[in-house]
Amino acid sequence: MSTVHVIGAAGFSGAQLAALVHEHPFFSLGQVTARADAGRRIVDVAPEYRVDAVLHEFDPDGVAEGDFAAVCYPHAEAAATVSQLVDRGVRVVDVSADHRLRDPGLYPCWYGFDHPRPDLLAEAVYGLPEINRDAIAGARVVANPGCYPTASLLALLPVKGRIGDIVIDAKSGVSGAGKTPTPDVHYSSVADSVRAYKVMQHRHAPEIAQEIGTDVVFTPHLVPVDRGLLASCYARFEGDAPHPDDLRQQYADFYAGAPFVEVVEAPPGMRAVQRNNFAQVCPMVDQAAGRLIAFGVIDNLMKGAAGQAVQNLNLMAGRPEDEGLR
Amino acid sequence: MSTVHVIGAAGFSGAQLAALVHEHPFFSLGQVTARADAGRRIVDVAPEYRVDAVLHEFDPDGVAEGDFAAVCYPHAEAAATVSQLVDRGVRVVDVSADHRLRDPGLYPCWYGFDHPRPDLLAEAVYGLPEINRDAIAGARVVANPGCYPTASLLALLPVKGRIGDIVIDAKSGVSGAGKTPTPDVHYSSVADSVRAYKVMQHRHAPEIAQEIGTDVVFTPHLVPVDRGLLASCYARFEGDAPHPDDLRQQYADFYAGAPFVEVVEAPPGMRAVQRNNFAQVCPMVDQAAGRLIAFGVIDNLMKGAAGQAVQNLNLMAGRPEDEGLR
Amino acid sequence: MSTVHVIGAAGFSGAQLAALVHEHPFFSLGQVTARADAGRRIVDVAPEYRVDAVLHEFDPDGVAEGDFAAVCYPHAEAAATVSQLVDRGVRVVDVSADHRLRDPGLYPCWYGFDHPRPDLLAEAVYGLPEINRDAIAGARVVANPGCYPTASLLALLPVKGRIGDIVIDAKSGVSGAGKTPTPDVHYSSVADSVRAYKVMQHRHAPEIAQEIGTDVVFTPHLVPVDRGLLASCYARFEGDAPHPDDLRQQYADFYAGAPFVEVVEAPPGMRAVQRNNFAQVCPMVDQAAGRLIAFGVIDNLMKGAAGQAVQNLNLMAGRPEDEGLR
Amino acid sequence: MSTVHVIGAAGFSGAQLAALVHEHPFFSLGQVTARADAGRRIVDVAPEYRVDAVLHEFDPDGVAEGDFAAVCYPHAEAAATVSQLVDRGVRVVDVSADHRLRDPGLYPCWYGFDHPRPDLLAEAVYGLPEINRDAIAGARVVANPGCYPTASLLALLPVKGRIGDIVIDAKSGVSGAGKTPTPDVHYSSVADSVRAYKVMQHRHAPEIAQEIGTDVVFTPHLVPVDRGLLASCYARFEGDAPHPDDLRQQYADFYAGAPFVEVVEAPPGMRAVQRNNFAQVCPMVDQAAGRLIAFGVIDNLMKGAAGQAVQNLNLMAGRPEDEGLR
Repeated sequence: MSTVHVIGAAGFSGAQLAALVHEHPFFSLGQVTARADAGRRIVDVAPEYRVDAVLHEFDPDGVAEGDFAAVCYPHAEAAATVSQLVDRGVRVVDVSADHRLRDPGLYPCWYGFDHPRPDLLAEAVYGLPEINRDAIAGARVVANPGCYPTASLLALLPVKGRIGDIVIDAKSGVSGAGKTPTPDVHYSSVADSVRAYKVMQHRHAPEIAQEIGTDVVFTPHLVPVDRGLLASCYARFEGDAPHPDDLRQQYADFYAGAPFVEVVEAPPGMRAVQRNNFAQVCPMVDQAAGRLIAFGVIDNLMKGAAGQAVQNLNLMAGRPEDEGLR
Repeated sequence: MSTVHVIGAAGFSGAQLAALVHEHPFFSLGQVTARADAGRRIVDVAPEYRVDAVLHEFDPDGVAEGDFAAVCYPHAEAAATVSQLVDRGVRVVDVSADHRLRDPGLYPCWYGFDHPRPDLLAEAVYGLPEINRDAIAGARVVANPGCYPTASLLALLPVKGRIGDIVIDAKSGVSGAGKTPTPDVHYSSVADSVRAYKVMQHRHAPEIAQEIGTDVVFTPHLVPVDRGLLASCYARFEGDAPHPDDLRQQYADFYAGAPFVEVVEAPPGMRAVQRNNFAQVCPMVDQAAGRLIAFGVIDNLMKGAAGQAVQNLNLMAGRPEDEGLR
Repeated sequence: MSTVHVIGAAGFSGAQLAALVHEHPFFSLGQVTARADAGRRIVDVAPEYRVDAVLHEFDPDGVAEGDFAAVCYPHAEAAATVSQLVDRGVRVVDVSADHRLRDPGLYPCWYGFDHPRPDLLAEAVYGLPEINRDAIAGARVVANPGCYPTASLLALLPVKGRIGDIVIDAKSGVSGAGKTPTPDVHYSSVADSVRAYKVMQHRHAPEIAQEIGTDVVFTPHLVPVDRGLLASCYARFEGDAPHPDDLRQQYADFYAGAPFVEVVEAPPGMRAVQRNNFAQVCPMVDQAAGRLIAFGVIDNLMKGAAGQAVQNLNLMAGRPEDEGLR
Repeated sequence: MSTVHVIGAAGFSGAQLAALVHEHPFFSLGQVTARADAGRRIVDVAPEYRVDAVLHEFDPDGVAEGDFAAVCYPHAEAAATVSQLVDRGVRVVDVSADHRLRDPGLYPCWYGFDHPRPDLLAEAVYGLPEINRDAIAGARVVANPGCYPTASLLALLPVKGRIGDIVIDAKSGVSGAGKTPTPDVHYSSVADSVRAYKVMQHRHAPEIAQEIGTDVVFTPHLVPVDRGLLASCYARFEGDAPHPDDLRQQYADFYAGAPFVEVVEAPPGMRAVQRNNFAQVCPMVDQAAGRLIAFGVIDNLMKGAAGQAVQNLNLMAGRPEDEGLR
């Protein structure tokens, strides 16, 4: 058994992650921390998980070399804690955005802070197991991908390098906006409506661009759904467009060893991936026009956050990739 | 034309009320006030109404004798403003709870403050036009009923005095909880769920009891709906229970002159009353068991707040009761 | 390992049940049957469960003595199949209503058919484990309770015999209405609305009355929720009303050995029970008025149908009551 | 006063249209027809509109020269009736798709039938008032645009001829799918999910292409909303991309005389256009990348169907374009 500390366990992702670790056959829950909610039990902030553990302020002295940690703090706040943990010999999955962008020069512009540990940033592995399985296994710091990048990249990576003019129109459930009550997540704002937000300004755009290797147009939308995220991706094949059957086979081959990616034949809804760690991707092609339309759908809190973090922890600990996630 | 000032026009009820006054053929919009939102236009805080007027801090010197006002402040804050307005010769509909309970002794217990003007409380008319039409017409202060009392009373008043053991199980849309973002109105709390709240503690219980003449069990529930309020009412007939046809006829007779109450044959949903000032009531009887089941449904912001306020203003100004409300 | 046949596995309850059996450590899935959907895989009719088994027409010769079966046919159609199965030595959980009412005379009136096997009806055990654990363990036929009765009874049984004037106002998610597309379950009918239906005519009323020992007023409502069922129950204590703390303790004692009933302190929403087999009950008392308000909430497809069926199958097979349900 | 017959008034669009005509100051309601629902009142099939008129089978002898009609039949069924009406001197708005595509050769391929009256098709005017105001005024047959084309075209027409590589990712409320209960509109299918459908196969694609003058990638999605339609449009400027302020000004100029199009500064949600005839469009530009992102949002039953039909009828009858639509 290994100990996993969940740093920032009172939010949507953190509580889901604590619950997954709590029920994991190999991991045991170490510290579960919160700031405003310190003193409360997880079951009180997230009753659906039935985790009785009490939230505490983070205690750096309460970790041991060889432990694992997942850090679910807001961006800019996570980096310092990750640094502290790594220096004590803890291997960390950073669920925040603080180690996702390889170029430290992007942090001031996109996230508004100078990265305090460019060295850790340089060594951090982008935690998408479907492309970085081996590197994750040996990493000290794994940057857990954003929810939008996860769905978008899974839909596009099999044709990486063969497409251009990428447009991603993404639709996210409200839990992706976090637990803080704001006017934007008021039921009366969200219900019966769909709207785009942060057009040309969302921080997940450079992350997607980094991994797909080219700039993208990325437009997130808020939809009246609690959990779930659909990325509808449009691109132009730079050479000849493949036959639909061949394209599907290429996707199937690409994800042959991936336990959580399902290549499906019809555009996927959110139901089949809600509350689990699966992603469904559906590539379609207009061969005459040379255009790709590919859909990727995930649960934003599972494959888009906490589930993927556990998947990464499994790899880091040498466990089966899907342990505790079925 | 008469001027109507809308005091507190940035909230859900206030903005709806300003919009109704704005489009009213007889009333013109006077001051539209807000505190935190002063300086913004109504269309910016409530785009769906397309009212261009700018919100200002309330200016007591900007009202004239003979004007009308509707006060949409939170309870305890409204009373002082109502007092100020009345003293300047303005006739007021108090949309807050500050003039609803005739017994001043109930305010400390239920609302946490001593009523500053028991004299105005004594003269205030309970603004349910269906029972107080004439008194409203001559009133200086009209206490606009709560949303739950409106739906419940309309469902029960035709048999007032003939029933006991009243249980009201009410379901309200989220806009009834107001515009302030709180954890309870976060989309991820409300969606896919129904729950009771303030059991045995809701302030609308004594208001209903006052008007129906007996204590009631009143349990409000929050439902994943934006606008709409359904009161399912259960009671025991104290004498012989009427035949269903007779009961329906009694309701039809009771509401014969009421332009906004529709007596319907099947349990009403919320659709037919949303965004309008109608109430639908449906009385049913289990004659053998001597029991009444009656449903009342309204839009909580219209017949449950702003629409009813305009209905009251119409009566106070000697206008047709439904002017500006069709 | 024991074999469980799921007869009628294409509907909401049946597919959920097949999925639970499929992942159960002790049971293996026998026949999974459907009529209109025969030939399709379960994963195609209910993708979220990822059960690959192919649906077939029911084959009576494909069962063996000692097998178990769960019958999810519509009422009136289940009885004949249950009879056939029992005669071949299969022990059956009837998820339909065909063995719930002990008095065969109620079937023509409430369900429109004469019961074909009054003998099986007489021996059938009402499958609410919280009150019939031992009898279920030895039964040949277990009548799986309705969804509304499950939530209502769990909220009221601890005070059975001490209360009268019972009013149950229940709110069900749409999956409870079944999979057949009808105007009533059209998204545009359900969304943004709540309405009562089958007032004084719902078939779950006599079932609740049978188990609680007295007539009840029972009013079901349809709410814009997929899965979840809340019963808000009102009653009068016939003797002295207990102190709130004592009442809660009585509930806690009553459910001391019940792995799936949680006695909670605040009125429960649906979130904490969705997609699991838990029920949450919350008893409250107005001691002065001598009145009980008790809430019961379940997932209508789990504790209200398929989960409870597996709970019953566990008991019948001598397995831990919660096996395969955590 | 002129008479307007509403042919096919039992569906979502038809009932909305009958209600608009019913309350219109200049038009009076002629025949309101239905097939399956003949004999019922409109208020019974669509209670929210409170239109008491009884639905009848269509009677061709009950129309007079100089009357107007709006035909809301399904495609392929409308053409024959339009033909019949025109031959009797009735001027028609065809709300169906039967006169939208100018090339009769497209009907067999996209709609599965040979157009019976290519002559009427040739003379029919595409009923988007914002571009065809004058032609509509004199037309005998107006082809009311589809809901998706309306939102998409309004978002793109101001830059028509200057853009290429058009991708339209559209999100529609469920009422757009019509009133017939199908598995796809079951509440339990729609709620908590978003999914694309008819990818590369939707009949509104050639309609958009016809009007914008170039092929487009068009992907419709179903979202858990009753009424409302958002088109998120992506394109590449073929010459230099304009400055954002200039682009907005171009849109404002283009829609200067259009009473129902609002050019807004932030990506619009659905709330401000629900249940009214407004469209909101929001053009944004990434000048460096030379890319346009433009949003168009409407109520699919109003500006996307019935409201636009009344707008067209107003123009045909020489009335103010917005009469009866404010």
